[in-house]
Amino acid sequence: MTQLLDVKTADELADFAEKLADAASDVTMKWFRKKVDIVNKEDEHFDPVTVADRDAETAIRALIEQHYPDHGIIGEEHGIKEANSAFTWVLDPVDGTRAFISGLPTWGTLIALLFNGIPVIGVIEQPYLRERYVGKPGIATLNGEPITTRPCTSLAVATISTTDPALFRGKDKDAFMRLLDASRLVRYGMDCYAYAILSSGYMDVVAETGLQIYDMMALIPIIRGAGGIAVSWTGAENPGEDGTLLALGDSALYRDTLDLLRH
Amino acid sequence: MTQLLDVKTADELADFAEKLADAASDVTMKWFRKKVDIVNKEDEHFDPVTVADRDAETAIRALIEQHYPDHGIIGEEHGIKEANSAFTWVLDPVDGTRAFISGLPTWGTLIALLFNGIPVIGVIEQPYLRERYVGKPGIATLNGEPITTRPCTSLAVATISTTDPALFRGKDKDAFMRLLDASRLVRYGMDCYAYAILSSGYMDVVAETGLQIYDMMALIPIIRGAGGIAVSWTGAENPGEDGTLLALGDSALYRDTLDLLRH
Repeated sequence: MTQLLDVKTADELADFAEKLADAASDVTMKWFRKKVDIVNKEDEHFDPVTVADRDAETAIRALIEQHYPDHGIIGEEHGIKEANSAFTWVLDPVDGTRAFISGLPTWGTLIALLFNGIPVIGVIEQPYLRERYVGKPGIATLNGEPITTRPCTSLAVATISTTDPALFRGKDKDAFMRLLDASRLVRYGMDCYAYAILSSGYMDVVAETGLQIYDMMALIPIIRGAGGIAVSWTGAENPGEDGTLLALGDSALYRDTLDLLRH
Repeated sequence: MTQLLDVKTADELADFAEKLADAASDVTMKWFRKKVDIVNKEDEHFDPVTVADRDAETAIRALIEQHYPDHGIIGEEHGIKEANSAFTWVLDPVDGTRAFISGLPTWGTLIALLFNGIPVIGVIEQPYLRERYVGKPGIATLNGEPITTRPCTSLAVATISTTDPALFRGKDKDAFMRLLDASRLVRYGMDCYAYAILSSGYMDVVAETGLQIYDMMALIPIIRGAGGIAVSWTGAENPGEDGTLLALGDSALYRDTLDLLRH
């Protein structure tokens, strides 16, 4: 079985993760709602990368190298540094770059710490809203105050969310449409912020596909710390392999939701 | 031709509209991210009405009755009061009730003043973000600072938005899909906030259908005051009759966009 992280170490590392969030926000807020140079990373799919994205990751990596030189780093912008310890940081300095360049405050800086491959600490930092969500074993907080998911015992009264229904392909699209038909209300366009909102108890289901490890790992300790469930669309306890993520505020929705999503 | 509103009167009434926004925010912020009782207004379509919605309109109407008893009022929640003057207020205390009940900060209080039937003053109030957008003849502001739309000379580089692509029906859906295919980036789920963002220069096109007069009138003076264009999907200068609204940041997009939307 996985070795558990002791509470003192978890608290220290969560405090350090908040310092990383501070450093990232100093950079991102210089660029949010300013003119930025947009570069296409991929030709076939519009995926803007801002100066904020690159410089924020540089700032975070410098602090990790300084304080924990044996920790590994996986960053969206600057790649992989192998670990010489059980710890690896996973970074997405600006998750929701499309929201960012559109002036919308639903992007976030994602900072995760893996311990033996399992995400144990996560931060969603939204500096424009002055909201910082932190998850660690057993607890999640918003600006230091504990948050919890809300009860929801039936999809018929559930609020669900995904970033963009057009991102689904083939069977995934059919699966999401079944979920949509079964639920009460849908909200689009939120990226990581949907998971923050679910963890705070205002939504019930978030389902996405095509995620990378740095889009996903920071969310898991927050969802779980708030009392929710984070699994893959096939119900795997350690999502990440197939790029799917299903977050539920209430475990009562688990069977019905997975039945609808499985194909 | 339409009689023009003199500048002194416009400034006084815009100041008064801001007092109405203050009164509304005192109510809405008591309820945002709190447990609220949700009532369905229409059986066939989910349209939650919150206590915030009703009480905020009550607060606004009381101030109008007190200071301008001869002004007309059209409110989403409490109906129509006929005018004994050229002025009519049009109110939507919580535009984006679905966002509101989902804890998302993209709803707004909409306050418009019509003069001889034409919207001349508009307010989008977003108290959680501490953002107040005000439009009056010749100018639009965000928290008192002038805002302008951005240049965008081709749909191929445009960011577009609509609240929910599933809200379009029949030919409207085809029309929006043509616009989507021609543009670079789309954002969903913003309600009135998309028009605030366009007016601030971060998006280029917002297109919606099925709007009511109280969803629409407050937006027009802000879009126009910021240098943008607000017309119906058929190009009518006074949108409202058919429930369609097209907002453009740059008039260079006018012909191409209308060509794509017309059917």
